[in-house]
Order: sequence, then C-alpha cells, then structure tokens
Amino acid sequence: MANSDDVSKRLGEEMRAISVAQFFEKNKHLLGFDNLTRALLTSVKEAVDNSLDACEEADILPDISVQIQQVDASRYKMIVEDNGPGIIPNKVGEVFAKLLFGSKFQTFGGKQGRGQQGIGISAVVLYAQNTTGKPARIITKTKSAKQATVVEVKIDVMKNEPIILSQTTIDWKNEHGTRVEVELEAKYVEKKASVSEYLKETAIVNPHASIKFVDPKGNKEIFKRVTDDLPKKSEKMKPHPYGMELGTLERLLKVTSARTLSSFLTTEFDKVGGTTATEILKVAGLDPKIGPKFITIEQADKLIKAMHSAKIQSPSTNGLSPIGADILKKSLESEYKLDFACSVTRTPSVYKGNAFVVEVALGYGGELDIEGPISLFRFANRVPLLYQQGACALTKATTTTSWKNYGISQSGNNMPTGPLIVIVHVASVWAPFTSESKDAVASIPEIVKETKLALQECGRLLGVFIGKRNRSQMAAKKREMFKNYSIELARELSKITNQDEKTLLTKLLQIAEEMYKSGQLKPEEEEAQLAKIEKRKVGAFKKDKDEDGDDYE
Amino acid sequence: MANSDDVSKRLGEEMRAISVAQFFEKNKHLLGFDNLTRALLTSVKEAVDNSLDACEEADILPDISVQIQQVDASRYKMIVEDNGPGIIPNKVGEVFAKLLFGSKFQTFGGKQGRGQQGIGISAVVLYAQNTTGKPARIITKTKSAKQATVVEVKIDVMKNEPIILSQTTIDWKNEHGTRVEVELEAKYVEKKASVSEYLKETAIVNPHASIKFVDPKGNKEIFKRVTDDLPKKSEKMKPHPYGMELGTLERLLKVTSARTLSSFLTTEFDKVGGTTATEILKVAGLDPKIGPKFITIEQADKLIKAMHSAKIQSPSTNGLSPIGADILKKSLESEYKLDFACSVTRTPSVYKGNAFVVEVALGYGGELDIEGPISLFRFANRVPLLYQQGACALTKATTTTSWKNYGISQSGNNMPTGPLIVIVHVASVWAPFTSESKDAVASIPEIVKETKLALQECGRLLGVFIGKRNRSQMAAKKREMFKNYSIELARELSKITNQDEKTLLTKLLQIAEEMYKSGQLKPEEEEAQLAKIEKRKVGAFKKDKDEDGDDYE
Repeated sequence: MANSDDVSKRLGEEMRAISVAQFFEKNKHLLGFDNLTRALLTSVKEAVDNSLDACEEADILPDISVQIQQVDASRYKMIVEDNGPGIIPNKVGEVFAKLLFGSKFQTFGGKQGRGQQGIGISAVVLYAQNTTGKPARIITKTKSAKQATVVEVKIDVMKNEPIILSQTTIDWKNEHGTRVEVELEAKYVEKKASVSEYLKETAIVNPHASIKFVDPKGNKEIFKRVTDDLPKKSEKMKPHPYGMELGTLERLLKVTSARTLSSFLTTEFDKVGGTTATEILKVAGLDPKIGPKFITIEQADKLIKAMHSAKIQSPSTNGLSPIGADILKKSLESEYKLDFACSVTRTPSVYKGNAFVVEVALGYGGELDIEGPISLFRFANRVPLLYQQGACALTKATTTTSWKNYGISQSGNNMPTGPLIVIVHVASVWAPFTSESKDAVASIPEIVKETKLALQECGRLLGVFIGKRNRSQMAAKKREMFKNYSIELARELSKITNQDEKTLLTKLLQIAEEMYKSGQLKPEEEEAQLAKIEKRKVGAFKKDKDEDGDDYE
Repeated sequence: MANSDDVSKRLGEEMRAISVAQFFEKNKHLLGFDNLTRALLTSVKEAVDNSLDACEEADILPDISVQIQQVDASRYKMIVEDNGPGIIPNKVGEVFAKLLFGSKFQTFGGKQGRGQQGIGISAVVLYAQNTTGKPARIITKTKSAKQATVVEVKIDVMKNEPIILSQTTIDWKNEHGTRVEVELEAKYVEKKASVSEYLKETAIVNPHASIKFVDPKGNKEIFKRVTDDLPKKSEKMKPHPYGMELGTLERLLKVTSARTLSSFLTTEFDKVGGTTATEILKVAGLDPKIGPKFITIEQADKLIKAMHSAKIQSPSTNGLSPIGADILKKSLESEYKLDFACSVTRTPSVYKGNAFVVEVALGYGGELDIEGPISLFRFANRVPLLYQQGACALTKATTTTSWKNYGISQSGNNMPTGPLIVIVHVASVWAPFTSESKDAVASIPEIVKETKLALQECGRLLGVFIGKRNRSQMAAKKREMFKNYSIELARELSKITNQDEKTLLTKLLQIAEEMYKSGQLKPEEEEAQLAKIEKRKVGAFKKDKDEDGDDYE
C-alpha cells in the first residue's frame, strides 16, 4: 500500500492551473472541430459570424468574401474578408489569439448577437496552429487609418496569450474592413454540410448581406443581397430581476454607481420603476437609502428572494432584432423555386428573464424533392445550426407538430416527408445552446411552444394552398374524364335527339369546362372555408392554444 | 450611419478578458447545472468522483458517506466525506475554488480517471455560491498531520481565483480524508435520476467502494463493498505517435529533457523503439542527433507526417483499469435479484492513439419488470452517465444490436423490451465525451464497434439461457397435457388390453416424465446446439465480425 501521505504530497506537486487554451486544444470537439470536414465549416462559420456582427455594429451593409484554397491533400487555406469597421491595431492579437476575450460577453443583461462568448475565432486560430503550425495572418484597417495593419499571430497555449510574430502596415484596396487568413488541416466536401450550403443558409437569414464564395477549384458563387435595409440594431438590455442569481447580484452591488438600493434597482434592472423598487425593498425588509456596497450577503439573499417573488412586467423586447416575416419569405424565394411560400414573426416572448422571438418560413413545391423527408433549416441569432439536429428544440417543435393537418405526410412524430422547406429562426439576447459549438438550442419549454405556434400558423396557410391545389388537380382529372366520355355521349345523344353530333360534342365540352373551371371553389364555398380557418386562427392566436393539445406549462 | 471609426474605437474599449469562472457561471448548463434536480446530482457526482479518484491514487479502499440535508424549500446542504489521503493545506483553496486547476489534466499522453479536466468540484462551489451566496466548507487531513485543516472558501469569479474566508485547524475523528460541505439551490427527487439511484449505479461499477447515503428525511442506505480487491491502478501513458498533433509536438520538443531527436522519440512516445525512431527520422529527412529544441516548425511538420505514416505498434493498454467481467457480474447480482447474469471484458482496443476497453454485463429475469423497455446503464471510467442517453454511442451500440437473435423483443432499432438490464462500461485514457458535463460518449466508430461485439458476446449466452428456458417451459406444458390425457387413455387401453387401469396410468405418467424431462435437450442435441454457437463465436471473435453485418471501417 502506498503511503497516503506521499500521495497527498505528490498530487499537490502535480497540481497546476490549466489555461483555457490548453483545455480547448485538447477538447476541440467541444468547439466544433470534431473532424476534418466540420473543422473547415466551423472555421468559416466563426469568421463569417464575426464579420456580420462587426458590420451590424457599424451600420454597414456587409460585403463578405470567403475563399477556400487547397494547400495539399489534407490542408486548406481559408480567407475571409469583410468591409466591417476594422479593428484597432493594438487589439488584433487578443481578438484572434486569446480565448475568452472580446466585447460580446455580457455578465449583466444581454444583447442579441451571433457571437456571445469570445471564443470562436481564437479557437479557429488555435486549431489551425495545432494542425499546421502556421500563424494566422490578419489584415485590418479602420476608416481613418492611412494604411492597413498586417499582423501574424499565434497563441501561447500554456498562457492563453497572443504571440505577435510580425506587425507591419501596407496600402490596402479597402477603405475599411478585416481579412483573416488561416491554414488548417481540413477536408473539403461539395455536397451535404458543405461551405457553399452553409453560406447559402447564412444568406437566407442575412438578406442584407452580400456573400461571395470561391471554392478550391476557383468556381465562384454569389449570394446576392436581397434587401438594402439594415436589420434593426440589437441593443444591450439590462438584466431582468427574474433572471438574476445571487452571486451575480452580489457583484453588481459592488460595481454599480448607484448610491442607494432604491436607485440601484431602478437604474440597473429592466422593468423596475420606483413603485416596484419600493415594493421589493419592503418585502426584503431593507432600507431604500442604504448604499449598495454595504449590503451583506444575508441582505442580498433577502433582496433576491424579494426580486424573484415580486410582480414585475415581462422583460423588454425592444433590443431583439428579428429578420421580419416579409424579408424572410423574399429571401427564401430568392434562393429556391417554389409554388408557395409563407412566413410569420411571432410577438416576442420570455424565458427565465430572457427575451426571445421565433420566426418561421415555409416553402413548398416547385423544384423541391417530392420524395424523402422535408428540409428543416434551423437558425439562432441569424446563424445556421448545422449539426446535432436530433438534440435541438427547434427540431423537436417541428416533429411534434401534426403536419397531416396541413396536407403533409408524416408518420408519428418523425420528420414529415414531401417537397417542403421549413425555416425556423430564434432570436434571443441569450440563446440557450446545448454546447459551445452552438449546434442545437436547448429544450426550453417556452421556445418549443412558440416555435410550434409559429409552425402551426404557417402550416394553416400551407394547408389552404395544398387543399386548393388538390381540388384543382382533382377537377382537372374529372374534366379530362368527362371529355373522354363526351365523344361517345355525343354520338348516342345525336341518335336520340336527332341533333348534329359535332354541335352536341362542342356543347358537352363547354359544360365540362364550366363544371370544373380550373378547380376553383365556388365563391360561397371559398368563404366558408376561409371562415373556418379564421376561426381556428383566432382560437390559436388569442389564447395561444397549441393545436396539437400539448401543454408546456 | 454610425461613424465606423467610432465603432472600432468603442469596441476596442469594450474588449476585455473573461475569466473561465465567469464563462461557466453564465454557461452553467454546459457543466450539468441545467436545472435544480440535475444541479444536486451533478454536485454529488463531482464530489464522489473526486473521493474515488483520491482513494485509488493512494491504494485505499474507499469509505464514502453522502448526506443531503434540506435547508429550506429550494435549498439543500450536500456533505460528502471520504477516507482518502487528504489534501495538503496550501492547495485546498485552488482545488475547490479555481476552475481548470488540478493534477488530472494531461497535456501529453493520458491516464484513465474519473475526472480529467480539473473543472468539476470547483464548478459545484461556483454554482453553490452563485445560488446561495455561501462559501464551501472543507475539512481535510493527511495521515501525518496532527490536526485537520478547515477552510471556508469562495471563488473570485472575475479572476477565477480562490478567496479563503477562514482557515483553522481542528481535531478530527478521521485518520485521513476529506469532507466537503456546500449549500446550493436544488431540488431533491426520490425516483428517477435520484441521488440514491446515482449512488447505486456508482456502487455497481465501483465494487471496491462502500458508500453510505443519508437522505433529507434521515433514511440511511448502504451500498456495501463487494470486493476487497483494489482495482488495478491506472497509469499515466505516454502519448502514441498516431494521436499527436503538430502544435502539441512543438511544445513537447521544447520541454523535453532528451538531448537528441532520436532519444526524444524513444523516451517521450509510446511504442517507439530505436528501429522505429530511425525509420521515422529517415522518412522525415532529419538528423537523429539534432537537439529537439533546435527543430524548426517546418522540420516539426515533416517529423509529424513521418510519425503519422510510420508503421508503429498499437498503443499500450497496460495503463487501463477495467472492472473485470467476474466482479462486474457479482456486483450486478448483489444489487438485483436475477434469473441469469453474464458479463464480458473485451481485449483493449484503440482509437486515434487512445487505448480503451469495453465491458458489458447482462442481467435477466428475476424481479425485473417484464413490460417496457430494458434498463440500459452506461458508464465511462467507472462513472455512471445519467443524461443524454439518446446522444450516446453506448446507446447507439445497444439499439443497433439485433436483440431478437437472443430472444429479446425489439422493434426496428428501438430500445428492446423485456426484463433485461444492460450494463456497458468503457474505460479509456481519454474518454471522448460530447460535452463537459460528461453525459454521453461521442460516436467514435471503434467504440461503437467494440461495444456491439461485447453486447453480442453476452447476447449469445443470454440467448442460450432463454432458449433453454423456453424449451423447458414448453416441455412442462406438454408434460402437463400428456398427463391430462393419460387418465382417459389409461381407461381406453385398459378396455383393449384387459390390464389394470391404475397400473397403466402409472406407466403412462412415467413415460411423460421421461419424454419431457425438465425440458432438457438430449445430450446429442445439446452438443449440436453448443457446436453451432461455438462456430458463431469463433467467427465473431477471431475475425471480430459484427453479427449484424455493420461495417465500421
């Protein structure tokens, strides 16, 4: 038996801090670098996310170019360039080569954004250097700078700090923007989960962006801008009392500039006015005039319990930036040939103090594949979610919707089948992903519910279209049959009535046309149909009732 | 339009480093603190994992006590005490209140262990203080220390550093060990995913441990030690060349004490002897006598390519510590009343330079539920995996095994149904979890394959048992029927033969007994059956052929 004392001593000596870069270098699958195909896609995703976020911050319509060049059998160079505001030179190293560094992480409150953790692009640089040993090369220029800054940077993995290998300036064609070049072990695929597919999906939910793509063979693809309207800018939102936890409250009490507890509550929190503050402090038994810094942990505990139990309005939703139903539909139609499309943006909703909004668009028929499962495209904060479909709340909401009601085949709660594209987008100040690789939305009941309601809303419109089309096709068939019989019928009638066979046939054909006129419903039928739908809609909308009868509360 | 220069400047000012504690405080769901029930379970799990690991390091048979006390409606106190070697006083703060700190994280190579990331117990302390504001209280004593050290500690979240609130010494009943007390927001449940269930599963795969549990009502439960044999101690293994990446190689070249490239290869890597080293360096075109520190990145690139393409033996597996088929079966039988149990430990295998071994145990019949799906218990490195069953490779291997072959009902690739417990344990120097919360094993083809082969191996034994039992039941039925008819038959025979009816009946009943003797097969039938099975076994074992015909390569 080992001497347990020696073991304690030895373990103590072996203990040390591990840098977050070391941790994620070894656990790279957690960040989406599981395999060579995915590593490339994740790299493109992180770079494009950053470009889009930067352009939005500066009210710039994004022009983004993505280029993938093959270096050797398993190595590729990724070049992503944008027309964003550019990065000030002394921050370049940290932005690209220090994990958990950035402007996006919000300790208190939140803001809708693609990135939210300050890990993404540095993880790309980390993966690149670990697989090829090459540094990242960054070119960036702000508008007023005379020249662009060129930085070659690697990560000191043991310290999670940037190592600047070189920093120079050059003349650059662009007025402002940023260009990232990395070389990495990767695999380039052309079909499913390809860079092209990813960019196409990105374009659909970012219709204000123009994205150019050059593949390793030099083929060019352009995803054109569909609208010149910049998305409504997302704003940083104050934390809502319901989403606050004791530890975070303690820190906020220490850093606030408010002088009294009362003003602390009204200035630092969403939806807390003077009356609400007074009530909260009364329940907590605290003097409104105490300075926040003097609050003990026991008092903070009372305060947070009062905050959680007080009646407070739902969080503000004005910081949210949905795509908008009209633009989403337009965008979908610009990428696919369809017979029918519809879309909806729900009114914002809330989970645990976080505001969110769900949008859905459906595209049907046209050149879509009639066989096989429908295509579900999932998005969170305008970013396509490509992996872990099975683990995602948006998938769950889709498969548990009763598509048969809307004329789409479905067996049980499996993915429905048919020529249908379903787009689901959830925008939130804090998108609850199941992992850092941001592939799947966690099963928050409120999000599943809102998604189902949005799907049902669109589903009903689709149902009306499919119903009409089915009737139309049925009518055409009947017309054809009537016509075929008309020739014989005309002959027999002619014998009985002694009238001219040809005249009779012409008349019969006219009747056929009239009876099954393009399969349209008669006006009164149409009206009855719409009234029926409207009634269901009102039921569903006003009461927010789930058509499938699911209960989320 | 915003001035893009101002935006660059503002973003630059807003940028800052985020501590890993801040990151995980906000992303606590990534570490298994999704909800109140799970938070409690995760806390118990992390504390017990640490206790078991510590005892194993010091060759101590673990005596662990777990106590959950209710503080108020949604607050509980968790107390976990062990008889481990204890922690040296000056490391207590960091061990319990600094994320990414410890002795377990291995940059080069690996070691089979429950913890592998140095996050677990500090995450518990972080969650506890964020929800209740309370520090963790630690008592620890090493064997030679006269008194135990008592430390009250919190985490400075912004810095990810411990704050020691108090440190004293006391007399303690225990010779050595560690006691952790935390108070946290939680929910205590008694049925599914309960602390008791978790400890029971832990006991099954840690038969050398004795675990005592006191629930909030004061009820005591004891999971007794099944064996006094300590598990084979897991050893730190050198990295295998196949699993090495360029960035890691670069760092290893810098920290090695080897003076030449040749000795660098033979001393730092698994399975590299003089001949292999020479070959590698020849392919790489490098002088064996160069000092590792002088290797350029281009040379390192050549070196790693040569390492990856060289013919090298599979990684050592002697550092692995499986439970052992016999002990696993014994352990299963000690927790459940069963009609049949069997188990297997496969020979070690390898994925990407990492050694692993799969063990499977099956328990059938007895008091197990006849209706509903079978019970699948998943384990990795002797730790129960309780969540994300659907995302786990071990589940996939179970559902894609054709259980009908072994007499168990199954529809398609769904979970089979019937009175069956399936235990799957994978032990590895680097268990590839899908997330930090360590709930599911990633779908590594090699692991799925080995698991299926182990399941099939046990499945065949189960099939023989069920087959025999079915035959036995069938025979009993026939015997019964024969007996019922015998009375009439005896009467009729008596008339024909003029013999005594009673004598005839007695003879007939003897014949029935003989014909359907306990449903046993005749010796020659038995032999034929076994030969058939043996043939399939040899086919499956020697060639490692998958019975379901799946191909993993």
